[in-house]
Amino acid sequence: MEVVTYFEDYEIGSSRTTSGRTITETDFVVHAGHTGDFFPHHMDAEFMKASPFGQRIAHGTLVFSIGVGLTASVINPVAFSYGYDRLRFIKPVFINDTIHSVTTIAAKEDDPKRPDAGRIIERLQVMNQHGETVLAADHIYIVERKKS
Amino acid sequence: MEVVTYFEDYEIGSSRTTSGRTITETDFVVHAGHTGDFFPHHMDAEFMKASPFGQRIAHGTLVFSIGVGLTASVINPVAFSYGYDRLRFIKPVFINDTIHSVTTIAAKEDDPKRPDAGRIIERLQVMNQHGETVLAADHIYIVERKKS
Amino acid sequence: MEVVTYFEDYEIGSSRTTSGRTITETDFVVHAGHTGDFFPHHMDAEFMKASPFGQRIAHGTLVFSIGVGLTASVINPVAFSYGYDRLRFIKPVFINDTIHSVTTIAAKEDDPKRPDAGRIIERLQVMNQHGETVLAADHIYIVERKKS
Amino acid sequence: MEVVTYFEDYEIGSSRTTSGRTITETDFVVHAGHTGDFFPHHMDAEFMKASPFGQRIAHGTLVFSIGVGLTASVINPVAFSYGYDRLRFIKPVFINDTIHSVTTIAAKEDDPKRPDAGRIIERLQVMNQHGETVLAADHIYIVERKKS
Amino acid sequence: MEVVTYFEDYEIGSSRTTSGRTITETDFVVHAGHTGDFFPHHMDAEFMKASPFGQRIAHGTLVFSIGVGLTASVINPVAFSYGYDRLRFIKPVFINDTIHSVTTIAAKEDDPKRPDAGRIIERLQVMNQHGETVLAADHIYIVERKKS
Amino acid sequence: MEVVTYFEDYEIGSSRTTSGRTITETDFVVHAGHTGDFFPHHMDAEFMKASPFGQRIAHGTLVFSIGVGLTASVINPVAFSYGYDRLRFIKPVFINDTIHSVTTIAAKEDDPKRPDAGRIIERLQVMNQHGETVLAADHIYIVERKKS
Repeated sequence: MEVVTYFEDYEIGSSRTTSGRTITETDFVVHAGHTGDFFPHHMDAEFMKASPFGQRIAHGTLVFSIGVGLTASVINPVAFSYGYDRLRFIKPVFINDTIHSVTTIAAKEDDPKRPDAGRIIERLQVMNQHGETVLAADHIYIVERKKS
Repeated sequence: MEVVTYFEDYEIGSSRTTSGRTITETDFVVHAGHTGDFFPHHMDAEFMKASPFGQRIAHGTLVFSIGVGLTASVINPVAFSYGYDRLRFIKPVFINDTIHSVTTIAAKEDDPKRPDAGRIIERLQVMNQHGETVLAADHIYIVERKKS
Repeated sequence: MEVVTYFEDYEIGSSRTTSGRTITETDFVVHAGHTGDFFPHHMDAEFMKASPFGQRIAHGTLVFSIGVGLTASVINPVAFSYGYDRLRFIKPVFINDTIHSVTTIAAKEDDPKRPDAGRIIERLQVMNQHGETVLAADHIYIVERKKS
Repeated sequence: MEVVTYFEDYEIGSSRTTSGRTITETDFVVHAGHTGDFFPHHMDAEFMKASPFGQRIAHGTLVFSIGVGLTASVINPVAFSYGYDRLRFIKPVFINDTIHSVTTIAAKEDDPKRPDAGRIIERLQVMNQHGETVLAADHIYIVERKKS
Repeated sequence: MEVVTYFEDYEIGSSRTTSGRTITETDFVVHAGHTGDFFPHHMDAEFMKASPFGQRIAHGTLVFSIGVGLTASVINPVAFSYGYDRLRFIKPVFINDTIHSVTTIAAKEDDPKRPDAGRIIERLQVMNQHGETVLAADHIYIVERKKS
Repeated sequence: MEVVTYFEDYEIGSSRTTSGRTITETDFVVHAGHTGDFFPHHMDAEFMKASPFGQRIAHGTLVFSIGVGLTASVINPVAFSYGYDRLRFIKPVFINDTIHSVTTIAAKEDDPKRPDAGRIIERLQVMNQHGETVLAADHIYIVERKKS
């Protein structure tokens, strides 16, 4: 679905919550195969039994990619993704955890290089079934201003 | 392979270059299926013919995940990943581009909360076959100091 | 996204068009691996060179599954899928074709067994980049009536 | 394996039973990723705990695709698939259920448009490990008649 | 399909030819992700341009696994696979090559440890679309003898 | 990582142990889908309950491919893989077993056809979490001799 939303239309504090998704052993195996990262933290149940976690933990890039993917429901054709700041891996995600994402418009800034656009800072929080934030990041979008 | 490297052992400016990997249409399809992000920018060749890119472009999370995955060759058991700063999507990655990653130790900092550890800032650059940087980020590790 | 829509709220003739998706060789390989159907019509380019199609053609179940999947954007919690009638494979889908789906409310019927619900017949058309219908089917939903 | 079977050779009532296949959590994740349907009914174990099913249920298109795939063992070069009638989702399929398919020749009909061919109606029943039919459909083939 | 075939029933020189399968770029990516072998010979098109092959070549284990998989059509419940001898990678397999397998009963031997069984040596040849053998191996089965 | 190792540099008896990897139900499903081998031994939990194993067992080609993949960490640019001898499936691998590979240089031989190269026989043992060897094979490499 496509919805045009200009820089002026974003409201600081407005928030969206996505549907949930159970992170499966399959997701661990797919992510390892997709990225080539087969570190035993993610792939070796025996090795991890002896760790403080007691079990395999998800790749940080897995939680980030799926957490971001959960938010991909509405296309804004006058915006594009510039990058992320303060991406933090806060708590481990285990097999069978169920995560969802919450996004909140945190700030609006001028774009020094683009007078006809501005920067939207959208706070991303990936949360587990216990209500804990497992990953956080600030997503920066460049969004067009309305033509005056 | 596991190599113990303490905070004191990291040298600012030291750098590693990974092997390369051709980003295939398969990777686009796998990443969409893994994350649930089927936006037409990544999945609809007809739609993208009419865009300035002229063709499908990779998900930002794909380039990040594979770019990080390429660096996953040596485990440091006295370090863990804290997060990333200044993650930027600099240039699009197209089907059949070949990327590799370059990591450089950029800074060493005290960790305010952990006197027995420090922070290593490792600059990640994902580069394409034309020598262009397509993605950059600062990876923050928490690394133990040597026992004194 | 969840939107409650009761039987009374459906309007005959109302229609939705999905975004598009390019059917890739990867989708053929994934579908074969998922279903176990490795018939040469889908998997053997040499065999198909000699056929009237001149190339591999998609599994019928692939076109159906992805055509239906494209419509999966809004959940109606007071409806469930009963089945399909008149599912027809009208034209072949080739690697690199781009399909989208069009759904149209075609009929509303009483449900003989459920007085508090009715049947919605939603016509599904999967179309290619040439505007041709490649697959059609009538999707039958059981939908609750408003409480009176 | 290829076996030529003409319209005249089909016998009403003749039946085949396939080998079985356990439907795994992996199949759920692969099907969601293949089709783009990540509805919580299939992907969110927490959400489904509160549903009448108590757990995730398979996509209808998953059961159909794998149920049909199980029958794909013998190629008849003088037949092609025309479509399906009366496809019904009768019972839910859960993770770890084991399904197999039973096909029965149910009817033989003239094809109004093709005097040198006829229609074979093959009844498909997908059954679980409890002997329950979970999905049924009538598969319509167009099959050549013997040259006279 | 299950067919009981006792040791005595195997005829030296009898041969089977499988259907064909086009080896796709997807198969390369899936095999790398499945095995964790991302060597540039299979994954880096730029690197391989400068090699004598001029392009990516399939993993040996890919050609072996798919070549064996092509033969998996009939189950013999009185046989099991003991291993392989003289597995040889004879020619490279490239993306878009179409392979098929030919199996030939090459020898029958007593099994020194099992008087009620014998060893069947089945020669496996994986061939490409040019009629060249790309992989060969001797598959050793342990097969029950008829009860006397 | 690339390390040049000439024929003369290999030492008989030298050995490497890889990191471990838990074999998941996902790996079974991926391998079946990759190879087309959906035999009930690997895919039908109900069927296998009645077998001596009591549960599904891994494809031989799965254990071989992943066992070899685990060793793929260092590229020797002056060597290539010639094939395998005495590949044996010694014990079954079950879902949730954790395997690792041990490779040992077992023999060095002249190559009758290549005076400037020799053959290295590297013994591969794939082992499970109980310390049992589940698969063994002799890997034959052709390795260049130092220029004299």
